[in-house]
Amino acid sequence: MTRAPNMPPPIEDAWPAICLVRPQMGENIGAVARVMLNFGLVSLRLVAPRDRWPNPKAEIVAVGANTVLKGAKVEWRLEDALADATLVVAATARPRELEKPVWGARETAAKLKAATAAGERPLVMFGPEASGMETDEVAKADAILTLPVNPGFASLNLANAVAAFAYAYAEARQERDTPSWFRDSENPPATQEELEAMFLHLERELEHGRFFHPLDKAPLMKRNLRSIFLRARLTQQEAQTMRGVIKALTIGRGGRKKDDL
Amino acid sequence: MTRAPNMPPPIEDAWPAICLVRPQMGENIGAVARVMLNFGLVSLRLVAPRDRWPNPKAEIVAVGANTVLKGAKVEWRLEDALADATLVVAATARPRELEKPVWGARETAAKLKAATAAGERPLVMFGPEASGMETDEVAKADAILTLPVNPGFASLNLANAVAAFAYAYAEARQERDTPSWFRDSENPPATQEELEAMFLHLERELEHGRFFHPLDKAPLMKRNLRSIFLRARLTQQEAQTMRGVIKALTIGRGGRKKDDL
Repeated sequence: MTRAPNMPPPIEDAWPAICLVRPQMGENIGAVARVMLNFGLVSLRLVAPRDRWPNPKAEIVAVGANTVLKGAKVEWRLEDALADATLVVAATARPRELEKPVWGARETAAKLKAATAAGERPLVMFGPEASGMETDEVAKADAILTLPVNPGFASLNLANAVAAFAYAYAEARQERDTPSWFRDSENPPATQEELEAMFLHLERELEHGRFFHPLDKAPLMKRNLRSIFLRARLTQQEAQTMRGVIKALTIGRGGRKKDDL
Repeated sequence: MTRAPNMPPPIEDAWPAICLVRPQMGENIGAVARVMLNFGLVSLRLVAPRDRWPNPKAEIVAVGANTVLKGAKVEWRLEDALADATLVVAATARPRELEKPVWGARETAAKLKAATAAGERPLVMFGPEASGMETDEVAKADAILTLPVNPGFASLNLANAVAAFAYAYAEARQERDTPSWFRDSENPPATQEELEAMFLHLERELEHGRFFHPLDKAPLMKRNLRSIFLRARLTQQEAQTMRGVIKALTIGRGGRKKDDL
């Protein structure tokens, strides 16, 4: 696109990132890249795209947004795509039995703008076209983004869902007031990777202590536990402290005696 | 989509209508229908679609929103598509030399919600894919809708542009407060058809009086004139009054004598 001489410079916000979880059609990935750049977002992550990558169909649909596609980080595991994020929001229309805050697009945009301004690295994930994300995937998020869709016809095209958020983010970017519920950057928040390591550490030790009983309830119990810590929005320091707590509680624990707690 | 028993009923707002001006690809028309219904809008109008209509490609992409496509009004002239509308907003990214209010999507949504609540029939028009609307087409609007796009990459996919507005409208629908700058329905606003008739009457009489001089400036002069009356948002009664004014001013005017004013 040619730019008039008096036009402001292009917007390119490295954060928030958009993460597509198991996207199916290359056309949709390209359409997402295009609408991201339309509204000034450039960081795209793909988790286990169904088709080979790079995908020529994505490039055709992206039109001029090939830089977004070329810069996309592709990971096979969701954990890896979220590793350096400090605030994760999952877009989902279906109600889930998860204790997480539910935000509209405007609220999400305001919070993510404030988070970015505070040096955080927020990310919004969108599920695959037909089915949406698995509950275990949504469970990794700090909050849920829900769009005000028609209950009789709720299934949004992937790029249209990203468009609604990206538009709301562009609006928020233009606003002056920034809610400041985010802590200052001297106390940086824990990354997803640090939290994940903490959770795995905790769960391993809990399994050792036969906490997850009955066994078929284990996934639900883990999810609820994670939700508690995600809601707390731990700092790096606090995540370290928690690991110290777990170690301290488990040190010297030998076999699986009933007395170990 | 199956609906859970406790789900609220589907949203289907007859107004505002979405009007696609000279749309090109059937896929885009289908994608617009889908995202309209996603956010509860059902009235679609098409002005001179490039390809034959009905369009099978549109039906494939619309997924479950075929009711929107089937209900679409197709017209060859923009005037006919706008005839019964009382408030027309043109979505355009390019700056135009038109004296019209410029609204963001949120502002447009709030105003259109208030207008609909007051019994008006608002309509938002979107231009063709590559080029956007002609200035003469935009000139028919009461206001301009501009999205906060990246100046370096401003060209939105048609369905994504509609998505941003439709999302903003769905947000506005949920809000309680309704700005009340719209007049009450006892004094209904003039329709586009009534305004158009008034403009044509006025222009005809002005041509008669050699008002449009030099002749190559006539389109611009007409546009500016129209802008004045559009901004005034005439009632039906006022549009009638204006026609009476024109008649009164021109009655008995014979040839093209210099004294006729």
